[in-house]
Amino acid sequence: MKLVSYLREGQDQLAFLVNNFLYDCDAVHPELAGNMNMFLNYWDDMFPIAQKVNAALVNGTMGVNKGLSLDGIQLLAPVPFPTSCRDGYAFRQHVAAARRNRGVPMIPEFDEYPIFYFTNHHSIQGPGPVYCMPDHFEQLDFELEAAIVICRNGRNIAAETADEYIGGLMIMNDMSARKLQMEEMLLNLGPAKGKDFSTVIGPCLVTLDELAPYEIPAKPGHTGKSWNLTMKCRVNGIEVSHGNLGDMDWTFAEIIERASYGATLYPGDVIGSGTVGTGCFLELNGTGKMNNPNYVPQWLKEGDIVEMEIEHIGSISNTIVKEDSSFSILAQKKKGTSIA
Amino acid sequence: MKLVSYLREGQDQLAFLVNNFLYDCDAVHPELAGNMNMFLNYWDDMFPIAQKVNAALVNGTMGVNKGLSLDGIQLLAPVPFPTSCRDGYAFRQHVAAARRNRGVPMIPEFDEYPIFYFTNHHSIQGPGPVYCMPDHFEQLDFELEAAIVICRNGRNIAAETADEYIGGLMIMNDMSARKLQMEEMLLNLGPAKGKDFSTVIGPCLVTLDELAPYEIPAKPGHTGKSWNLTMKCRVNGIEVSHGNLGDMDWTFAEIIERASYGATLYPGDVIGSGTVGTGCFLELNGTGKMNNPNYVPQWLKEGDIVEMEIEHIGSISNTIVKEDSSFSILAQKKKGTSIA
Repeated sequence: MKLVSYLREGQDQLAFLVNNFLYDCDAVHPELAGNMNMFLNYWDDMFPIAQKVNAALVNGTMGVNKGLSLDGIQLLAPVPFPTSCRDGYAFRQHVAAARRNRGVPMIPEFDEYPIFYFTNHHSIQGPGPVYCMPDHFEQLDFELEAAIVICRNGRNIAAETADEYIGGLMIMNDMSARKLQMEEMLLNLGPAKGKDFSTVIGPCLVTLDELAPYEIPAKPGHTGKSWNLTMKCRVNGIEVSHGNLGDMDWTFAEIIERASYGATLYPGDVIGSGTVGTGCFLELNGTGKMNNPNYVPQWLKEGDIVEMEIEHIGSISNTIVKEDSSFSILAQKKKGTSIA
Repeated sequence: MKLVSYLREGQDQLAFLVNNFLYDCDAVHPELAGNMNMFLNYWDDMFPIAQKVNAALVNGTMGVNKGLSLDGIQLLAPVPFPTSCRDGYAFRQHVAAARRNRGVPMIPEFDEYPIFYFTNHHSIQGPGPVYCMPDHFEQLDFELEAAIVICRNGRNIAAETADEYIGGLMIMNDMSARKLQMEEMLLNLGPAKGKDFSTVIGPCLVTLDELAPYEIPAKPGHTGKSWNLTMKCRVNGIEVSHGNLGDMDWTFAEIIERASYGATLYPGDVIGSGTVGTGCFLELNGTGKMNNPNYVPQWLKEGDIVEMEIEHIGSISNTIVKEDSSFSILAQKKKGTSIA
């Protein structure tokens, strides 16, 4: 089942996506919610109904002539109002490449626990313009990831049962302003400001039943579902990143276990996978420079189109737009009086 | 004006706190909200009315015999459902002491920009039990801070006007599990897991008009309001921390400027100051050890009572309680297969 949220009369409307047509959930069945937050909050009641309705829409026994064409529709993030957003660090290849490029060895603790951090859930967005301020253009980057949304309350969830808390998969683009990010990480906090302006999710939420044919075993020593799904990013039509969701070392189930340890998870909480190998300019620039001293680093600039694709989930496109302001916090760095 | 939220018939009820008596906001004036989230969302309409009502309650022309005694009331966090939570790093003394104790020099970038990170707004709580899992007891710590709540939508807010976005001040105790925190910070992320189980705010929200007599100028080169208010923490009745809110180097106004740069702030967003000098065992232990090689580090343990006090705001007390579970994520660290 593929679920989308789109803008309808100023509200977020939840719909089934079937063969490029949208079917409003609450219109096709009176017991289904009209928006994603409500659907997630009543997941156990609604999911079985939605599965039957979706099957009927797919096989054509329902919904003939009732669908709304995707053309001209403004898709929102499938979860337009997430209750929180965590981002993981699950792909060993990305971490290893980034460290190799910096000339430091792989850190053994990566294999010991699946870390995450909190990012700005208020800046979650769907396809369309990504508004950037002048400072964001200082080494502006994308990050190709997958994300899940939590569909049940849970606390102290063991990895063995954690997949039951996953509502479905989405593409995630964790937009990053590297100069701001490097600033704060120098002081051993974050990332926070470097990533608080935009996190893209979409284009739809694909529930796990639909992805069952692509399930593969977790890596040795790991627990939880994994999926053999190609991940790509194109910038202005040129493929720059190419990975596979099956390369995740830490599974979402393991990240959920850690995230829920002594902390309650709620329906609507979004969790990103972390960047796939080759999945951002920061890594690609490092590799490029290591292989060729004359390599010119690339960053996103105004007008660039970032298109991400995950097999069987879909693709999502965003355009980098300059916000109408010359305000810079980098430019006004100050020196406080030293009392040390 | 002092505002509290308390538990009434399973809901959060907003009330004025006057001379240790509570007056439900929506009961004393029909145009006032019954809960804090609504009050913050209609701040510009409600604050002037609330100021008049509060003045009448204080001078006794209103509310005689209508107050509810604080005794037996279960206070909640003044903002029981924050829309997000950021924590700053504003006190130079704390940062300098922590670095000195680790044998590294003060980092000059501290004086250049007011960093923050996002923490788990779903774990905000008021006074009462703080539930901890076994791993949290591995170097369990408090952090004595102040916090503000945002009362207006804003984006790209200049520090010069940012105080207008502050609804009021509260005490904050940013509970910290240092072993979990050190783990993730070794991998250059967070803090996140080390602080996601409990962040205490309270006991009331004190609006800035009430604190005007304690305003002092910001430190040289800084912008925004500062307040001369003593901050203390006692553990089991023994004073362990003693600082002053006026020692903040970066003001809340400056933190708001950075936080709102290219990112929208919403009513209900909570922002902490970061730890005041002497405001946590981690710093105190480092200083103790430096001064005396036989010093025995102290950490919080089951049954400990942590009481924080900020002058003219009040005091808030929490008891450390062991959650009924032996589950440990530290104990089950695994070694993934190395593919580096």
